[in-house]
Amino acid sequence: MGMKCIGIDVGGTTVKVGLFETDGTLLDKWEVKSRKEEDGKYILPDVAASIREKLAGLGLDLKKDIVGAGLGVPGPVMPDGSVEVCVNLGWHHVNPQKELSGLLDGIPVKSGNDANVAALGEMWQGGGKGYSDIIMITLGTGVGGGVILDQKILSGRHGLGGEIGHIHVRDDEWEHCNCGGVGCLEQIASATGIAREARRKMAADSRDSMLRKFGDDVTAKDVLDAAKAGDELADEVFEVVARYLGLALGQAALIVDPEIFVIGGGVSRAGQFLVDRVFKYYDYFTPISKFKAKIGLATLGNDAGIYGAARLIL
Amino acid sequence: MGMKCIGIDVGGTTVKVGLFETDGTLLDKWEVKSRKEEDGKYILPDVAASIREKLAGLGLDLKKDIVGAGLGVPGPVMPDGSVEVCVNLGWHHVNPQKELSGLLDGIPVKSGNDANVAALGEMWQGGGKGYSDIIMITLGTGVGGGVILDQKILSGRHGLGGEIGHIHVRDDEWEHCNCGGVGCLEQIASATGIAREARRKMAADSRDSMLRKFGDDVTAKDVLDAAKAGDELADEVFEVVARYLGLALGQAALIVDPEIFVIGGGVSRAGQFLVDRVFKYYDYFTPISKFKAKIGLATLGNDAGIYGAARLIL
Repeated sequence: MGMKCIGIDVGGTTVKVGLFETDGTLLDKWEVKSRKEEDGKYILPDVAASIREKLAGLGLDLKKDIVGAGLGVPGPVMPDGSVEVCVNLGWHHVNPQKELSGLLDGIPVKSGNDANVAALGEMWQGGGKGYSDIIMITLGTGVGGGVILDQKILSGRHGLGGEIGHIHVRDDEWEHCNCGGVGCLEQIASATGIAREARRKMAADSRDSMLRKFGDDVTAKDVLDAAKAGDELADEVFEVVARYLGLALGQAALIVDPEIFVIGGGVSRAGQFLVDRVFKYYDYFTPISKFKAKIGLATLGNDAGIYGAARLIL
Repeated sequence: MGMKCIGIDVGGTTVKVGLFETDGTLLDKWEVKSRKEEDGKYILPDVAASIREKLAGLGLDLKKDIVGAGLGVPGPVMPDGSVEVCVNLGWHHVNPQKELSGLLDGIPVKSGNDANVAALGEMWQGGGKGYSDIIMITLGTGVGGGVILDQKILSGRHGLGGEIGHIHVRDDEWEHCNCGGVGCLEQIASATGIAREARRKMAADSRDSMLRKFGDDVTAKDVLDAAKAGDELADEVFEVVARYLGLALGQAALIVDPEIFVIGGGVSRAGQFLVDRVFKYYDYFTPISKFKAKIGLATLGNDAGIYGAARLIL
């Protein structure tokens, strides 16, 4: 048996853990509940205990068989691995990679922001496989992003690399984003944002639509399904979303110029229908060159984080 | 005497050449006219001849004393050094680094886009000295940009890295940019763009202003001087320019997250007055974090290109 590595994706509800061969084969994965009591101080010890138990069950030795572990953290991670604050976990002024290494007999542990780590995972074994320079956009409850250059995460000097969800794209917005800004991409292109666009559209427009039966409970999935089915109102909502996504991709392309954009998250289940519409606007906003980055879909789903975390340590 | 290197900045009118110590000391600089006849085929041979002559005069040997030469090219440069087209020079489908190396007895030659190369120069010996991750914005006739990460140029996969002048920032624009787009940063924040904003403002607003005496010949310098002197109309034009510049810097910060932005080009002569106003909006558009990149001024002026070109080869 060859050497193995561990990928850990820390979330506010559960921690996902994966055991991998160093070639990217997933051998086993499991979850640990995120105990958030007392500023989340039990989270890493719980993870460490579950890893020890798993390895013992498989007859593997921490020091002999494991290259190291990677850790995806839901917040900005500084170049030295320190974390100022993780709101979802209760962490303040911690260095989780140092702490976890101490809990695992000193094996190497590296950490990164979870969205960046997911991007690395998609580059390694997902929608960006075979590419070295990718930008991933995750359209979930929020909009996450990650920039991978030369197969490495671009974390940035203040932990803000790839925070594409919070670039300002829309001037005619009045509500505030969670980040404190107004007009962020996340306010339009997240699942939450798409639903809000649909509610606004239904309120401002009297036409009939498949969306009306959902009322204020309309979801992003309802919008995308209805747009696919040819519903005019839903399609116009979708058009707005695709426009701002294409704009943001265009802006990112003219700064970083990657090989491929990989779109993930729940909203990306709309598939090629979404990709084609976003590409139309991405192309429109980058007339300077006929050479374009590709736009593709993420393939690892919720496992992107453990894949990327494992890749961090290789 | 230690080893030396050569920096070459190819422009549409003249080619600037600099001879440097490898520690960044500029020993000598000179210019060569850009002969654009016959698709610019004489440009590189003229440069090579002038280098040979200069070295002979100084008693230096091409092979023994020169580490290599760097070349800044006014157009996109592909990862292999090939250039599809340089409109200003008449070049089509050339590989100038290969050609120049052949003309200089095979010494190493590396090329890059001129705006990117200028950014590298400012990082090495200019406004970005001491930093490794910088984004430079050059506000001249157009708006150029360059991204330096880990002391290296981010050229991008299609030669579009750092093309910040052509990110779309303004929806309520109707005129086209040179790139074919509508609403590019360059249309507002270049010297040309600032003058255009001033003409529009004077036409749309009846207030008195120091700018009125210039009429349609108003320049960016007139606008900035008048704004500094407290002219209300000029200040409002400047405010618009600063807003879109700050927005673009904010977008770039949330993708690449550099240590410092360095502003250069003729417009940057407005100095700290410009920096402070741009920072105000950059700060406004990045509420997600209290940690901000600095904004500084370029210091090498027109020599940034030869400095950066020389640094390319080290």
